[in-house]
Amino acid sequence: MITRTQVQEAQRHAAALLDHVGIHLTDQERANIEIAEFGLGELARTGLELVVYVNTDRYCAKELVLFPRQTCPEHRHPPVGNDPGKMETFRCRWGKVWLYVEGDAAADVQAQVPAGSEPYYTVFHEIELLPGGQYTIPPNTLHWFQAGDEGAIVSEFSSTSRDEFDIFTDPRIKRIPEIAEGR
Amino acid sequence: MITRTQVQEAQRHAAALLDHVGIHLTDQERANIEIAEFGLGELARTGLELVVYVNTDRYCAKELVLFPRQTCPEHRHPPVGNDPGKMETFRCRWGKVWLYVEGDAAADVQAQVPAGSEPYYTVFHEIELLPGGQYTIPPNTLHWFQAGDEGAIVSEFSSTSRDEFDIFTDPRIKRIPEIAEGR
Repeated sequence: MITRTQVQEAQRHAAALLDHVGIHLTDQERANIEIAEFGLGELARTGLELVVYVNTDRYCAKELVLFPRQTCPEHRHPPVGNDPGKMETFRCRWGKVWLYVEGDAAADVQAQVPAGSEPYYTVFHEIELLPGGQYTIPPNTLHWFQAGDEGAIVSEFSSTSRDEFDIFTDPRIKRIPEIAEGR
Repeated sequence: MITRTQVQEAQRHAAALLDHVGIHLTDQERANIEIAEFGLGELARTGLELVVYVNTDRYCAKELVLFPRQTCPEHRHPPVGNDPGKMETFRCRWGKVWLYVEGDAAADVQAQVPAGSEPYYTVFHEIELLPGGQYTIPPNTLHWFQAGDEGAIVSEFSSTSRDEFDIFTDPRIKRIPEIAEGR
Protein backbone atom coordinates (compact mmCIF):
# COMPACT_ATOMS: atom_id res chain seq x y z
CA MET A 1 0.00 0.00 0.00
CA ILE A 2 1.30 3.42 -0.93
CA THR A 3 -0.24 6.86 -0.52
CA ARG A 4 -0.96 9.29 -3.35
CA THR A 5 1.59 11.66 -1.79
CA GLN A 6 4.29 8.95 -1.82
CA VAL A 7 3.54 8.23 -5.47
CA GLN A 8 3.85 11.90 -6.43
CA GLU A 9 7.07 12.27 -4.47
CA ALA A 10 8.58 9.23 -6.19
CA GLN A 11 7.42 10.58 -9.58
CA ARG A 12 9.13 13.91 -8.91
CA HIS A 13 12.29 12.17 -7.78
CA ALA A 14 12.38 9.92 -10.86
CA ALA A 15 11.65 12.83 -13.23
CA ALA A 16 14.47 14.85 -11.67
CA LEU A 17 16.91 11.99 -12.17
CA LEU A 18 15.89 11.60 -15.84
CA ASP A 19 16.24 15.37 -16.35
CA HIS A 20 19.67 15.25 -14.73
CA VAL A 21 20.95 12.77 -17.31
CA GLY A 22 19.36 14.56 -20.27
CA ILE A 23 16.45 12.21 -20.94
CA HIS A 24 13.52 14.39 -21.98
CA LEU A 25 9.95 13.46 -21.13
CA THR A 26 6.72 15.09 -22.21
CA ASP A 27 4.56 16.63 -19.46
CA GLN A 28 2.14 13.74 -19.86
CA GLU A 29 4.90 11.14 -19.48
CA ARG A 30 6.19 12.95 -16.41
CA ALA A 31 2.71 12.90 -14.83
CA ASN A 32 2.28 9.20 -15.64
CA ILE A 33 5.57 7.78 -14.37
CA GLU A 34 4.62 4.37 -13.02
CA ILE A 35 5.59 3.70 -9.43
CA ALA A 36 5.82 -0.04 -8.75
CA GLU A 37 6.03 -0.73 -5.03
CA PHE A 38 5.08 -4.39 -5.34
CA GLY A 39 2.74 -4.31 -2.34
CA LEU A 40 5.51 -4.60 0.26
CA GLY A 41 5.18 -1.05 1.60
CA GLU A 42 8.91 -0.33 1.37
CA LEU A 43 9.27 1.57 -1.91
CA ALA A 44 12.74 2.95 -1.16
CA ARG A 45 14.02 -0.61 -0.73
CA THR A 46 11.80 -2.71 -3.00
CA GLY A 47 10.40 -0.77 -5.90
CA LEU A 48 10.89 0.54 -9.41
CA GLU A 49 9.94 3.65 -11.39
CA LEU A 50 9.00 3.21 -15.05
CA VAL A 51 8.35 5.32 -18.13
CA VAL A 52 6.71 3.21 -20.84
CA TYR A 53 7.56 4.78 -24.20
CA VAL A 54 5.75 2.24 -26.34
CA ASN A 55 4.21 -1.20 -25.86
CA THR A 56 2.76 -2.77 -29.02
CA ASP A 57 1.88 -6.40 -29.78
CA ARG A 58 5.39 -6.70 -31.27
CA TYR A 59 7.84 -4.77 -29.06
CA CYS A 60 8.13 -2.57 -26.02
CA ALA A 61 10.54 0.12 -24.77
CA LYS A 62 10.74 1.59 -21.30
CA GLU A 63 13.04 3.68 -19.17
CA LEU A 64 13.58 2.20 -15.68
CA VAL A 65 14.64 4.40 -12.79
CA LEU A 66 16.10 2.91 -9.62
CA PHE A 67 16.76 4.98 -6.54
CA PRO A 68 19.97 4.28 -4.57
CA ARG A 69 20.05 0.56 -3.64
CA GLN A 70 16.44 0.14 -4.72
CA THR A 71 15.61 -3.43 -5.78
CA CYS A 72 13.29 -4.88 -8.38
CA PRO A 73 12.40 -8.22 -6.80
CA GLU A 74 12.95 -11.66 -8.33
CA HIS A 75 10.52 -12.65 -11.05
CA ARG A 76 10.19 -14.29 -14.46
CA HIS A 77 8.10 -13.69 -17.59
CA PRO A 78 6.31 -16.96 -18.39
CA PRO A 79 4.93 -18.09 -21.76
CA VAL A 80 1.49 -16.58 -22.49
CA GLY A 81 -0.45 -18.27 -25.30
CA ASN A 82 1.79 -18.33 -28.38
CA ASP A 83 4.26 -15.94 -26.76
CA PRO A 84 7.27 -17.83 -25.32
CA GLY A 85 7.51 -15.18 -22.60
CA LYS A 86 8.93 -11.68 -22.56
CA MET A 87 12.56 -11.36 -23.66
CA GLU A 88 14.26 -8.20 -22.48
CA THR A 89 17.48 -6.29 -22.99
CA PHE A 90 18.69 -4.00 -20.22
CA ARG A 91 21.03 -1.17 -21.16
CA CYS A 92 22.50 0.90 -18.36
CA ARG A 93 22.35 4.63 -19.16
CA TRP A 94 23.52 6.11 -15.87
CA GLY A 95 24.69 4.89 -12.47
CA LYS A 96 25.30 1.24 -11.72
CA VAL A 97 23.04 -1.79 -11.54
CA TRP A 98 23.65 -5.37 -10.48
CA LEU A 99 21.52 -7.83 -12.37
CA TYR A 100 21.06 -11.40 -11.09
CA VAL A 101 19.94 -14.27 -13.30
CA GLU A 102 19.95 -18.05 -13.20
CA GLY A 103 23.44 -19.59 -13.39
CA ASP A 104 26.58 -19.93 -11.27
CA ALA A 105 26.25 -17.79 -8.16
CA ALA A 106 28.77 -15.01 -7.58
CA ALA A 107 31.27 -15.69 -4.81
CA ASP A 108 30.63 -12.24 -3.35
CA VAL A 109 27.20 -10.90 -4.22
CA GLN A 110 27.47 -7.11 -4.38
CA ALA A 111 23.77 -6.30 -3.94
CA GLN A 112 22.09 -6.60 -0.56
CA VAL A 113 18.95 -8.73 -0.50
CA PRO A 114 16.20 -6.65 1.19
CA ALA A 115 16.07 -7.65 4.87
CA GLY A 116 13.14 -9.94 5.63
CA SER A 117 12.86 -11.07 2.02
CA GLU A 118 15.82 -13.47 1.94
CA PRO A 119 13.78 -16.62 1.14
CA TYR A 120 12.50 -15.01 -2.05
CA TYR A 121 15.85 -14.34 -3.72
CA THR A 122 17.17 -17.56 -5.23
CA VAL A 123 19.36 -16.65 -8.25
CA PHE A 124 22.76 -15.02 -7.84
CA HIS A 125 24.58 -15.10 -11.16
CA GLU A 126 25.80 -11.50 -11.14
CA ILE A 127 26.12 -9.08 -14.05
CA GLU A 128 27.36 -5.58 -13.21
CA LEU A 129 26.09 -2.97 -15.65
CA LEU A 130 27.72 0.45 -15.95
CA PRO A 131 26.72 3.13 -18.50
CA GLY A 132 26.86 1.56 -21.98
CA GLY A 133 26.71 -1.97 -20.58
CA GLN A 134 23.82 -4.21 -21.57
CA TYR A 135 22.49 -7.72 -21.09
CA THR A 136 19.66 -9.72 -22.66
CA ILE A 137 17.53 -11.92 -20.41
CA PRO A 138 15.95 -14.94 -22.12
CA PRO A 139 12.20 -15.58 -21.66
CA ASN A 140 10.97 -17.34 -18.52
CA THR A 141 14.30 -16.80 -16.69
CA LEU A 142 14.33 -15.77 -13.02
CA HIS A 143 15.99 -12.38 -12.49
CA TRP A 144 16.18 -9.45 -10.09
CA PHE A 145 18.24 -6.29 -9.97
CA GLN A 146 19.44 -3.59 -7.61
CA ALA A 147 20.98 -0.16 -8.18
CA GLY A 148 24.30 0.91 -6.69
CA ASP A 149 24.71 3.71 -4.16
CA GLU A 150 23.82 6.50 -6.61
CA GLY A 151 20.82 4.81 -8.23
CA ALA A 152 20.56 3.91 -11.90
CA ILE A 153 18.74 4.55 -15.14
CA VAL A 154 18.26 1.55 -17.41
CA SER A 155 16.68 1.42 -20.87
CA GLU A 156 14.64 -1.73 -21.40
CA PHE A 157 14.11 -2.97 -24.95
CA SER A 158 11.87 -6.03 -25.13
CA SER A 159 9.14 -8.06 -26.73
CA THR A 160 5.58 -7.14 -25.71
CA SER A 161 5.18 -6.35 -22.01
CA ARG A 162 2.35 -8.08 -20.13
CA ASP A 163 3.24 -7.23 -16.54
CA GLU A 164 0.08 -8.83 -15.16
CA PHE A 165 1.45 -12.28 -16.03
CA ASP A 166 4.82 -11.83 -14.27
CA ILE A 167 5.53 -14.51 -11.69
CA PHE A 168 7.32 -13.30 -8.55
CA THR A 169 9.20 -15.64 -6.23
CA ASP A 170 7.77 -13.77 -3.21
CA PRO A 171 4.08 -14.73 -2.86
CA ARG A 172 3.39 -11.48 -0.94
CA ILE A 173 4.11 -9.38 -4.03
CA LYS A 174 1.39 -7.65 -6.01
CA ARG A 175 2.69 -6.22 -9.31
CA ILE A 176 -0.23 -3.82 -9.74
CA PRO A 177 -0.02 -1.54 -6.69
CA GLU A 178 -2.89 -0.48 -4.51
CA ILE A 179 -2.96 3.21 -3.77
CA ALA A 180 -4.42 4.38 -0.47
CA GLU A 181 -7.50 6.58 -0.61
CA GLY A 182 -7.06 10.27 0.25
CA ARG A 183 -3.49 11.30 1.04
CA MET B 1 30.91 4.77 -52.78
CA ILE B 2 32.62 6.06 -49.68
CA THR B 3 36.24 5.87 -48.57
CA ARG B 4 37.47 4.26 -45.37
CA THR B 5 38.64 7.71 -44.24
CA GLN B 6 35.16 9.19 -44.77
CA VAL B 7 33.63 6.33 -42.78
CA GLN B 8 36.01 6.89 -39.88
CA GLU B 9 35.42 10.63 -39.92
CA ALA B 10 31.64 10.13 -39.84
CA GLN B 11 32.04 7.60 -37.01
CA ARG B 12 34.06 10.11 -34.97
CA HIS B 13 31.52 12.85 -35.62
CA ALA B 14 28.58 10.63 -34.62
CA ALA B 15 30.38 9.37 -31.50
CA ALA B 16 31.14 12.94 -30.46
CA LEU B 17 27.47 13.91 -30.81
CA LEU B 18 26.35 10.92 -28.73
CA ASP B 19 28.95 11.77 -26.07
CA HIS B 20 27.73 15.36 -26.08
CA VAL B 21 24.20 14.33 -25.12
CA GLY B 22 25.33 11.79 -22.50
CA ILE B 23 24.69 8.58 -24.43
CA HIS B 24 27.48 6.18 -23.49
CA LEU B 25 28.85 3.65 -25.95
CA THR B 26 31.34 0.87 -25.40
CA ASP B 27 34.62 1.09 -27.32
CA GLN B 28 33.40 -1.71 -29.57
CA GLU B 29 30.12 0.08 -30.32
CA ARG B 30 32.03 3.26 -31.08
CA ALA B 31 34.29 1.43 -33.53
CA ASN B 32 31.31 -0.23 -35.21
CA ILE B 33 29.02 2.77 -35.77
CA GLU B 34 27.30 1.98 -39.05
CA ILE B 35 27.60 4.65 -41.73
CA ALA B 36 24.79 4.33 -44.28
CA GLU B 37 25.51 6.46 -47.32
CA PHE B 38 22.99 4.70 -49.54
CA GLY B 39 25.32 4.61 -52.54
CA LEU B 40 24.68 8.19 -53.62
CA GLY B 41 28.12 9.53 -52.69
CA GLU B 42 26.73 12.50 -50.76
CA LEU B 43 26.85 11.35 -47.14
CA ALA B 44 26.48 14.83 -45.62
CA ARG B 45 23.20 15.26 -47.48
CA THR B 46 21.81 11.73 -47.84
CA GLY B 47 22.98 9.42 -45.10
CA LEU B 48 22.49 8.09 -41.61
CA GLU B 49 24.68 6.95 -38.72
CA LEU B 50 23.47 3.99 -36.63
CA VAL B 51 24.33 2.21 -33.40
CA VAL B 52 22.51 -1.12 -33.21
CA TYR B 53 22.09 -2.02 -29.54
CA VAL B 54 20.19 -5.25 -30.08
CA ASN B 55 18.43 -6.99 -32.96
CA THR B 56 16.77 -10.30 -32.06
CA ASP B 57 14.07 -12.28 -33.90
CA ARG B 58 11.53 -10.43 -31.70
CA TYR B 59 12.65 -6.80 -31.33
CA CYS B 60 15.35 -4.30 -32.20
CA ALA B 61 16.72 -1.09 -30.68
CA LYS B 62 19.05 1.41 -32.32
CA GLU B 63 20.32 4.92 -31.87
CA LEU B 64 20.16 6.99 -35.07
CA VAL B 65 22.43 10.00 -35.55
CA LEU B 66 21.69 12.61 -38.19
CA PHE B 67 24.11 15.38 -39.03
CA PRO B 68 22.67 18.86 -39.72
CA ARG B 69 20.06 18.61 -42.50
CA GLN B 70 21.13 15.04 -43.26
CA THR B 71 18.33 12.96 -44.83
CA CYS B 72 17.41 9.30 -44.59
CA PRO B 73 15.80 8.73 -47.98
CA GLU B 74 12.26 7.49 -48.62
CA HIS B 75 11.69 3.78 -48.08
CA ARG B 76 9.33 1.19 -46.62
CA HIS B 77 9.70 -2.09 -44.76
CA PRO B 78 7.73 -4.73 -46.69
CA PRO B 79 6.30 -7.99 -45.36
CA VAL B 80 8.92 -10.77 -45.22
CA GLY B 81 7.55 -14.29 -44.83
CA ASN B 82 5.26 -14.32 -41.78
CA ASP B 83 6.50 -10.88 -40.70
CA PRO B 84 4.03 -8.13 -41.76
CA GLY B 85 6.99 -5.77 -42.14
CA LYS B 86 9.05 -3.82 -39.66
CA MET B 87 7.08 -1.53 -37.34
CA GLU B 88 9.16 1.22 -35.77
CA THR B 89 8.86 3.91 -33.13
CA PHE B 90 11.09 6.98 -33.41
CA ARG B 91 11.79 8.94 -30.25
CA CYS B 92 13.74 12.17 -30.58
CA ARG B 93 16.44 12.46 -27.92
CA TRP B 94 18.22 15.60 -29.06
CA GLY B 95 17.93 18.17 -31.84
CA LYS B 96 15.03 18.25 -34.26
CA VAL B 97 13.82 15.88 -36.93
CA TRP B 98 11.09 16.15 -39.55
CA LEU B 99 9.51 12.81 -40.35
CA TYR B 100 7.41 12.35 -43.49
CA VAL B 101 4.91 9.53 -43.92
CA GLU B 102 1.95 8.73 -46.16
CA GLY B 103 -1.07 10.99 -45.62
CA ASP B 104 -2.12 14.58 -46.21
CA ALA B 105 0.86 16.61 -47.40
CA ALA B 106 2.02 19.56 -45.31
CA ALA B 107 1.26 22.97 -46.84
CA ASP B 108 4.83 24.09 -46.15
CA VAL B 109 7.26 21.21 -46.01
CA GLN B 110 10.04 22.22 -43.63
CA ALA B 111 12.68 19.76 -44.85
CA GLN B 112 14.54 20.29 -48.09
CA VAL B 113 14.44 17.36 -50.51
CA PRO B 114 18.05 16.67 -51.56
CA ALA B 115 18.68 18.41 -54.88
CA GLY B 116 18.62 16.03 -57.83
CA SER B 117 16.54 13.47 -55.93
CA GLU B 118 13.16 15.19 -56.16
CA PRO B 119 11.40 12.40 -58.10
CA TYR B 120 12.14 9.94 -55.30
CA TYR B 121 10.39 11.78 -52.48
CA THR B 122 6.64 11.21 -52.73
CA VAL B 123 5.16 11.41 -49.19
CA PHE B 124 4.91 14.70 -47.34
CA HIS B 125 2.72 14.21 -44.28
CA GLU B 126 4.96 16.02 -41.78
CA ILE B 127 5.63 15.17 -38.14
CA GLU B 128 8.10 17.43 -36.31
CA LEU B 129 9.87 15.65 -33.49
CA LEU B 130 11.62 17.54 -30.71
CA PRO B 131 13.31 15.92 -27.67
CA GLY B 132 10.74 13.70 -25.96
CA GLY B 133 8.56 13.55 -29.07
CA GLN B 134 7.89 10.19 -30.67
CA TYR B 135 5.94 8.61 -33.52
CA THR B 136 5.21 5.02 -34.54
CA ILE B 137 5.37 4.12 -38.23
CA PRO B 138 3.14 1.19 -39.29
CA PRO B 139 4.67 -1.63 -41.36
CA ASN B 140 5.05 -1.21 -45.11
CA THR B 141 4.49 2.58 -44.93
CA LEU B 142 6.62 4.93 -47.02
CA HIS B 143 8.65 7.32 -44.87
CA TRP B 144 11.73 9.54 -44.90
CA PHE B 145 13.25 11.96 -42.43
CA GLN B 146 15.64 14.88 -42.18
CA ALA B 147 17.36 16.57 -39.23
CA GLY B 148 17.10 20.27 -38.49
CA ASP B 149 20.02 22.69 -38.60
CA GLU B 150 21.76 21.23 -35.52
CA GLY B 151 21.34 17.56 -36.40
CA ALA B 152 19.41 15.04 -34.33
CA ILE B 153 19.64 11.91 -32.24
CA VAL B 154 16.69 9.54 -32.46
CA SER B 155 16.11 6.30 -30.57
CA GLU B 156 14.47 3.66 -32.73
CA PHE B 157 12.45 0.90 -31.03
CA SER B 158 11.09 -1.67 -33.46
CA SER B 159 10.25 -5.18 -34.45
CA THR B 160 13.12 -7.20 -35.97
CA SER B 161 15.30 -5.20 -38.37
CA ARG B 162 16.03 -6.75 -41.77
CA ASP B 163 17.59 -3.80 -43.60
CA GLU B 164 18.41 -5.89 -46.68
CA PHE B 165 14.68 -6.10 -47.52
CA ASP B 166 14.02 -2.34 -47.32
CA ILE B 167 12.49 -0.93 -50.50
CA PHE B 168 13.70 2.54 -51.47
CA THR B 169 11.79 4.80 -53.82
CA ASP B 170 15.04 5.85 -55.47
CA PRO B 171 16.27 2.93 -57.62
CA ARG B 172 19.85 4.25 -57.43
CA ILE B 173 20.03 3.54 -53.71
CA LYS B 174 22.04 0.68 -52.24
CA ARG B 175 21.31 0.14 -48.53
CA ILE B 176 24.48 -1.86 -47.92
CA PRO B 177 27.29 0.55 -48.78
CA GLU B 178 30.33 -0.20 -50.82
CA ILE B 179 33.56 1.01 -49.28
CA ALA B 180 36.39 2.02 -51.58
CA GLU B 181 39.61 0.06 -51.34
CA GLY B 182 42.59 1.79 -49.72
CA ARG B 183 41.87 5.25 -48.40
